[in-house]
Amino acid sequence: MTIHNSPENLCESLHESLEVGYDVPAVVGMDEADIQTPCLVIDLDALEKNICTMGQYAKEMGVRHRVHGKMHKSVDIALLQEKLGNSCGVCCQKVSEAEVFARGGIKDVLVSNQVRDPAKIDRLARLPKLGARTLCCVDDIDNVAELSAAAQKHGTQIECLVEIDCGAGRCGVEAGQPVVDIAVAINAAPNLKFAGIQAYQGAMQHMEGFEDRKAKIEIAVAIVARSIAMLKDKNLECDIVGGGGTGSYYFEGTSGVFNELQCGSYAFMDADYQRIKDENGNKISEFENALFILTSVMSHTKADKAICDAGLKAQSVDSGLPYIFGRDDVEYIKCSDEHGVISDPNGALKINEKLKLVPGHCDPTCNVHDYYVGVRNGKVEVLWPVSARGKAY
Amino acid sequence: MTIHNSPENLCESLHESLEVGYDVPAVVGMDEADIQTPCLVIDLDALEKNICTMGQYAKEMGVRHRVHGKMHKSVDIALLQEKLGNSCGVCCQKVSEAEVFARGGIKDVLVSNQVRDPAKIDRLARLPKLGARTLCCVDDIDNVAELSAAAQKHGTQIECLVEIDCGAGRCGVEAGQPVVDIAVAINAAPNLKFAGIQAYQGAMQHMEGFEDRKAKIEIAVAIVARSIAMLKDKNLECDIVGGGGTGSYYFEGTSGVFNELQCGSYAFMDADYQRIKDENGNKISEFENALFILTSVMSHTKADKAICDAGLKAQSVDSGLPYIFGRDDVEYIKCSDEHGVISDPNGALKINEKLKLVPGHCDPTCNVHDYYVGVRNGKVEVLWPVSARGKAY
Repeated sequence: MTIHNSPENLCESLHESLEVGYDVPAVVGMDEADIQTPCLVIDLDALEKNICTMGQYAKEMGVRHRVHGKMHKSVDIALLQEKLGNSCGVCCQKVSEAEVFARGGIKDVLVSNQVRDPAKIDRLARLPKLGARTLCCVDDIDNVAELSAAAQKHGTQIECLVEIDCGAGRCGVEAGQPVVDIAVAINAAPNLKFAGIQAYQGAMQHMEGFEDRKAKIEIAVAIVARSIAMLKDKNLECDIVGGGGTGSYYFEGTSGVFNELQCGSYAFMDADYQRIKDENGNKISEFENALFILTSVMSHTKADKAICDAGLKAQSVDSGLPYIFGRDDVEYIKCSDEHGVISDPNGALKINEKLKLVPGHCDPTCNVHDYYVGVRNGKVEVLWPVSARGKAY
Repeated sequence: MTIHNSPENLCESLHESLEVGYDVPAVVGMDEADIQTPCLVIDLDALEKNICTMGQYAKEMGVRHRVHGKMHKSVDIALLQEKLGNSCGVCCQKVSEAEVFARGGIKDVLVSNQVRDPAKIDRLARLPKLGARTLCCVDDIDNVAELSAAAQKHGTQIECLVEIDCGAGRCGVEAGQPVVDIAVAINAAPNLKFAGIQAYQGAMQHMEGFEDRKAKIEIAVAIVARSIAMLKDKNLECDIVGGGGTGSYYFEGTSGVFNELQCGSYAFMDADYQRIKDENGNKISEFENALFILTSVMSHTKADKAICDAGLKAQSVDSGLPYIFGRDDVEYIKCSDEHGVISDPNGALKINEKLKLVPGHCDPTCNVHDYYVGVRNGKVEVLWPVSARGKAY
């Protein structure tokens, strides 16, 4: 039995004992038709195309692209994004995720989040020992001394971005003086380095209208620019001005203010991101569906309804139900723990027929699965662990 | 480092290399205050009380209780339910879950679902070789020959329940003649045994009003009773007439028709089940909150809002947001991938303060975590793997 030789770990003896349908949904070389459902399937052609497209955009815009590893949680995909998309590293949201990426060979890892728990701070401060440039965000001046003490204890350096709340209403300080105050404190703290600004406008990524999103980002760009100018007055340069997502990267990328994009979902796409519109009011089309939940019909006792085997334990429905890829005649209309109800008005579906679902929201959907089954030309080409699955700490 | 000696597997060398905050959220003996968040915490006193309460009810009603293992996916908890609650075995929804429970020592395992994929049927037919009585549901007469062929191939026996759709609109045949037709086919099929009826009314479990739930179950009881009578005319006896959940068990238990309850959520409870009312219009009170998502405050830049570290990757919000246990002054109001926004009008919350969230829906919430941290008297007493986490096949 061959398993893709992931940079991630599992020892050989474990590999050899893996059973399809118990431990793994598929093995390399298997026909696509034999994959056990429900599971995550990746169209490798589409994934590679999406990665290349975004890499090319970033290059044209003259900005770096730090891919958001919290979306896929996969070392293999992050390495592919380096190779094909020229990404400069990854960002992620948790220290435990950062450890997975650093152990997997990523050399530049940003925890684009606050790290406050003492045990987590201690782990973060040890991360450079794995060979990775280590960065995190700060939105509270009290955090500076905590991070500095841990970095001194371990003889390492943590680079810090001041996080600005530019409209998402979550973490981050107000632009302007609070940014300067924290940056000055970072700059003065032993074993810390002030590295710039984190300014992700998460709340607008999924707004349908192009002009609505643009207006939100213009506000963000303006307050970030003002903060950069105030920092310059204190002789503090921003190596990184980071932000941007799949719903906004062209705004940040052409702003002249941001120099680093941090997109995640573009690599896979999902139903929620496909609801947003471009400047002509059309669905965005630059990225293809690369991620699917493969599911099988397993009951069909009503003439007009089929039941499939992918429910809440195979996806997250926080952003709506999945849609069925390539089929206009059937619709996924209800989701319970282990079942999906599919409207099948023509009675077209057969028992064991497989369908590809496009998940409503890719990030939390990936987080319930242990593997990605990468498919090309009808064959399973790779089996990638969702390396940081469950790494929530 | 001590890890609870679970009947589930992980080898000793793995145990010794587990790191708190990377592999596991806690270790046995640790102070509750040191548990890494976000993670699932179980109040062991409450869990044991819930298990005993339901065990006692079933005994008083003179019915068996087959616990629904798909809720917790934990071998350790299923064994505790046998020990303290006198459960007769488990039901679960997937063959891969059934394998976990059988490997873990459960001797009577019902897949309360259809099994149609050829590879899954083959696995099911091998399950008795692990020492477990093996049962599944059937709602299509074509499935009978498939199951029989696999059981013959492996020289095993599969016991089959005919599943009736008693109102949930999901799997299951109509009551009456279709039940008899399938039962007769099962009875005639080599290596299969007709074992009775599966009649779970899933759609009514969460209806708030007691009388509304009662009316739905009365319909189910009537159609099940009619089917049993029709089966008797063909000399087919039902060893099992199974169904019932946390929102209805007292109806099925006292119906005189059902002889086996299959409750899951009662052991943990969740916000959704706590919205249903008893016959006096009060919240149901027989089961206590035993399951919590432990979370920490990690940002508080706005005076009236705190941000915690439990978002969509630490829970499922399909049935609504979690509530904060034991606190009337703060409210969980928004959930994103890795963050929760907490309304804190009095600015009461401090950085690193821990809160216990009661999840909206326990089943899919448990499925995103790798461990249960069992706590008593302020100390971590057990660390149980979510043994069948991700077993969706």
